[in-house]
Amino acid sequence: MGGYENGDSPAAAAWEGGVILGVDGGTTSTVCVCLPAAMPPPEAPGSVAVLSRAIAGCSNRNSVGENAALETLEQVMMQALTMANTDRSAVVAVCLSVSGVNHPSDQQRMLDWICNLFPRNAKFYVENDAVAALASGTMGKLHGCVLIAGTGSIAYGVTEDGKVARAAGAGPVLGDWGGYGIAAQALTAVIKSHDGRGPQTNLTRDIIRKLEISSPDELIGWAYADPSWARIAALVPVVVSAAEDGDKVANTILHDAVQELAESVVAVVRRLTLCGEDGKDQFPLVLVGGVLEGNKKWDISGEVIKCISKVFPGVCPIRPEVEPAIGAALLASSHLRKESKLQNGS
Amino acid sequence: MGGYENGDSPAAAAWEGGVILGVDGGTTSTVCVCLPAAMPPPEAPGSVAVLSRAIAGCSNRNSVGENAALETLEQVMMQALTMANTDRSAVVAVCLSVSGVNHPSDQQRMLDWICNLFPRNAKFYVENDAVAALASGTMGKLHGCVLIAGTGSIAYGVTEDGKVARAAGAGPVLGDWGGYGIAAQALTAVIKSHDGRGPQTNLTRDIIRKLEISSPDELIGWAYADPSWARIAALVPVVVSAAEDGDKVANTILHDAVQELAESVVAVVRRLTLCGEDGKDQFPLVLVGGVLEGNKKWDISGEVIKCISKVFPGVCPIRPEVEPAIGAALLASSHLRKESKLQNGS
Repeated sequence: MGGYENGDSPAAAAWEGGVILGVDGGTTSTVCVCLPAAMPPPEAPGSVAVLSRAIAGCSNRNSVGENAALETLEQVMMQALTMANTDRSAVVAVCLSVSGVNHPSDQQRMLDWICNLFPRNAKFYVENDAVAALASGTMGKLHGCVLIAGTGSIAYGVTEDGKVARAAGAGPVLGDWGGYGIAAQALTAVIKSHDGRGPQTNLTRDIIRKLEISSPDELIGWAYADPSWARIAALVPVVVSAAEDGDKVANTILHDAVQELAESVVAVVRRLTLCGEDGKDQFPLVLVGGVLEGNKKWDISGEVIKCISKVFPGVCPIRPEVEPAIGAALLASSHLRKESKLQNGS
Repeated sequence: MGGYENGDSPAAAAWEGGVILGVDGGTTSTVCVCLPAAMPPPEAPGSVAVLSRAIAGCSNRNSVGENAALETLEQVMMQALTMANTDRSAVVAVCLSVSGVNHPSDQQRMLDWICNLFPRNAKFYVENDAVAALASGTMGKLHGCVLIAGTGSIAYGVTEDGKVARAAGAGPVLGDWGGYGIAAQALTAVIKSHDGRGPQTNLTRDIIRKLEISSPDELIGWAYADPSWARIAALVPVVVSAAEDGDKVANTILHDAVQELAESVVAVVRRLTLCGEDGKDQFPLVLVGGVLEGNKKWDISGEVIKCISKVFPGVCPIRPEVEPAIGAALLASSHLRKESKLQNGS
């Protein structure tokens, strides 16, 4: 975690009228929520008081460049403040949880930038997007593991004493098994069935229909016409539906994905000993992302949990009821309370 | 095969002084050779009389665009003619074997273009690059199967009566197992070992040393810094060398690659019944590409042949002694003789 302090910690009393900003910055969109700084720790998702919510475009620096990313972040934060009838002088803490921020040097550059936007004594936290996703499930407490399976996949864990570990999250060339991985396997199965290397599968009929092409030969042109991973990952519902209808090839692909996703969680939990020395302690597992959502007959997240619980029976699955931007804000709030207690106690 | 005739077939006597051009157009470079049209069918690779050989840059239309590709092709052919002390009026036949030409519509556009460059009665053949590779092993006879494993992989077969079939050749997203596939598996194994999902492997030490990076964490940045498949495929020698030194993970990757490459050949041979009805007839298998070359202890092509011969014992492996451009020229020469015989006989 990259934390940064402009000056002395504000006294808890000074939080009256102050606000906290939580930002979830992604490649598709950026969301900023504004929460009252003086709120008590929320008991339940419904009890979070959100003053305002603003939305903007991409803030992944790897995608649009650093200047454009910072401009988007500033704009969405200022908009949230205006919508909450306040301004930058009221800001007590900000948590930026932004995709594409992985290295400590990335964190430091964002901290150096953000501390010039807000009051001297405000607190700033810069995290990668997995951290806000975890906090969105644990209501701001940084403990446990989060599994995100959207276009890519990542397992990310944090211990009570702040040790972190991750597995996967390296993109499809390096073995991620999110939506892109699942869909690429399905496309490969269609090609193999077509050229005689693989068994027949209904995926051929279903994918051809979905893409409105006339033959598997046209898949090659389709696949390389656009390098966007999300475009390929959008075929996951076709795979799930074929598996639900009993297609063997589609079922094998989903079972492989379940295995890979479960292994990434098991690796993180093992490295952090999140399950205690005897491997039986309870630990929260937050599940996020399109591949793990939905009320489908073929329940990918249910199967992943089954798989993990064979190794670590103490796994406690959580499906977040608040969005990652709120997770980021709760995280800032939780850090703030902890630091204030430390200061008051010292 | 896409053949095109400008006018009547030339009488065999008219071939005296005439030349044949064979072009191998790839993404890295384009080679054109000029051969005498009146030569007899060559008995052995050493007996091919090459008048000249010219080389130019990329002629893959998908890579540089159609106009630039055609310009490169015209330039390399004119250069070969000049080097052979002749000119376009002497051209009796041309075989263009160009990567990126897959659909009949691609072939037709190239035929429409090339017939305006040369005499009215010349013959033109446009093929994809697998066909010239096959011909380079069979000395111009179109019969058998070719397996190319470079950056990607493809198996391509032709029967005596002109039926064709292919397997793989769909690029890495769609399951090719050439050098890119092998190297991507090795990189994935390093990431998995690093984050606790996979066993330890010497590939970690070897790849880090080769790429001059300091930790597997830096692999992610390296892998996505440049989308070139060839750059990733260039790591194959590291994988082969780790396997030769007994690394289990590297050995598994190479055995998987062998299996996948063999399956692509088996699929083509089965679909074309190249091995006869009883599956025991002999058929030529031409082996081409960086992954199948070299005199290594870990003999990928040897293992592929072993694997295929368990299914089809009649497989006769051939490693071409001439380059694909000569294969293309021999193909044009062989077509020309066949057509001339048909005309003389009718």
